[in-house]
Amino acid sequence: MPLFSRILIVGVGLIGGSIGKAARQRGLAGQVVGLVRSEASAARASAADVVDLVTTEPAEAAQDADLVVICTPVGAIAASLEALLPHLPDGAIITDAGSTKRSVVEQCESLLAGKTDGPRFVGSHPLAGDHRTGPEASRADLLVDRTVIVTPTQQTDSQALERVDDFWANLGAKTESMHPGTHDAIVAETSHLPHLIASVLAAFISGDALPFTAGGWRDTTRIAAGDPELWTQIFQENRENIIQSAEFFRERLDHTIQGMKEDNWVKVKAILAAGKKFRDEAEGLPANARE
Amino acid sequence: MPLFSRILIVGVGLIGGSIGKAARQRGLAGQVVGLVRSEASAARASAADVVDLVTTEPAEAAQDADLVVICTPVGAIAASLEALLPHLPDGAIITDAGSTKRSVVEQCESLLAGKTDGPRFVGSHPLAGDHRTGPEASRADLLVDRTVIVTPTQQTDSQALERVDDFWANLGAKTESMHPGTHDAIVAETSHLPHLIASVLAAFISGDALPFTAGGWRDTTRIAAGDPELWTQIFQENRENIIQSAEFFRERLDHTIQGMKEDNWVKVKAILAAGKKFRDEAEGLPANARE
Repeated sequence: MPLFSRILIVGVGLIGGSIGKAARQRGLAGQVVGLVRSEASAARASAADVVDLVTTEPAEAAQDADLVVICTPVGAIAASLEALLPHLPDGAIITDAGSTKRSVVEQCESLLAGKTDGPRFVGSHPLAGDHRTGPEASRADLLVDRTVIVTPTQQTDSQALERVDDFWANLGAKTESMHPGTHDAIVAETSHLPHLIASVLAAFISGDALPFTAGGWRDTTRIAAGDPELWTQIFQENRENIIQSAEFFRERLDHTIQGMKEDNWVKVKAILAAGKKFRDEAEGLPANARE
Repeated sequence: MPLFSRILIVGVGLIGGSIGKAARQRGLAGQVVGLVRSEASAARASAADVVDLVTTEPAEAAQDADLVVICTPVGAIAASLEALLPHLPDGAIITDAGSTKRSVVEQCESLLAGKTDGPRFVGSHPLAGDHRTGPEASRADLLVDRTVIVTPTQQTDSQALERVDDFWANLGAKTESMHPGTHDAIVAETSHLPHLIASVLAAFISGDALPFTAGGWRDTTRIAAGDPELWTQIFQENRENIIQSAEFFRERLDHTIQGMKEDNWVKVKAILAAGKKFRDEAEGLPANARE
């Protein structure tokens, strides 16, 4: 018997499409349904063959769904849940794939507050992605051996948490559980600060230098090619943590520039050596895909 | 008839080895000789089969060489030339593959000053590389379609410049000519600042966050895996330009952090959009390999 009878994926892009493909391939649901906003998105999702059925109607999508995975941009997750709520069956379990958690979880929990026997929410963040976007780029193995962070709170129903955990594990991922606030502080460091840095580096290159960019600049700025609208939402959602990480980074950069000004090459080399050590260490850790 | 009768490559690592392989494959010389410092390096160069003959003896290496390509770390280029000088034939042309130019060119030109009919030097910097190192990683096509910056000065012999230009073109590269000082300002932006940023980012990640690094952090810090000793030399050689680029970057980063603090998301999004624009533009330019 499949894990769920009907899985609803809201937002069928790279992540939503990959989850749909994997859930179908692994037989995790009787049916996998996709909810999208426009007919154009519906056509793309159908063409990419990532779900069993695609619709633009929340009521049709929500019917009999026992698992909902919201894969819209972070700024739209709570609104997606709100639109579905009147139509969801009581026992439904809802999770998401947003890359910030504190504000998303707070908003979703407050939408569900007081509905004791109603749908239950558990926040998730799959540490997986690709520089390509859209359902065409989705892959059934996107989550295999990746980490999914689940972010239960005191309000979280333990049975729902267990089911969400099972779901990710059945897609081939390993799950780590942490508080939404801890999650946001960590991804500020591992994902949002690098994005900020890469964007500033790319945004202010001089016209003289641009034609001579080689592999180093290109690797370092690769993620700056991400969608500015999506990333502005992420920066808004995780504002405090990103500011704190960025200020710490700036202070360490100042310290390094100061070392160069003082011709303190022992200090500069020690920083380069520490960078190499942690970089090499990260490479040896279980692979996580592109953010 | 080959372009040169005997090409000497000093330092047979990734770059030297790749130049050797390509020169042999393309028949650019009667003989390609490698000069290395240790027997261990000689054994590796032989095993990798990148030159016709490898030696640790400057006198033996220099004999009859009409082109010398110095591929040692930037801090050692002038010393390599000095060790060879007593043994080089008068007509020899010398170039290098160092990633900084002002100080290298100054030092090499002063070593040759006053020797009117002696060997002649032209600085070069092939914008190519790989994250792997050593002669084992070398590839005959490393320079194909890459840019080599040549850095003539008022002292440069025009015939020697033409021969060096021809040499790189015959390896499949395209050459760009600029002043050593201009070169150093440009590579500070395109290569040395990204390296500094990547190293600081990697060096100061917290232990809590390291296990959760995914594609974004890994791309952005990839070049931090470079050799700290080599990079400290590059930072020393190009100190002023790197400090200037880093201070400009820090100022732009401050500006961006300020935008976040002021909740000025229009400003933040504009910076992300500019980053994406230049990143996408760079991707559309002729490919240069990893630095």
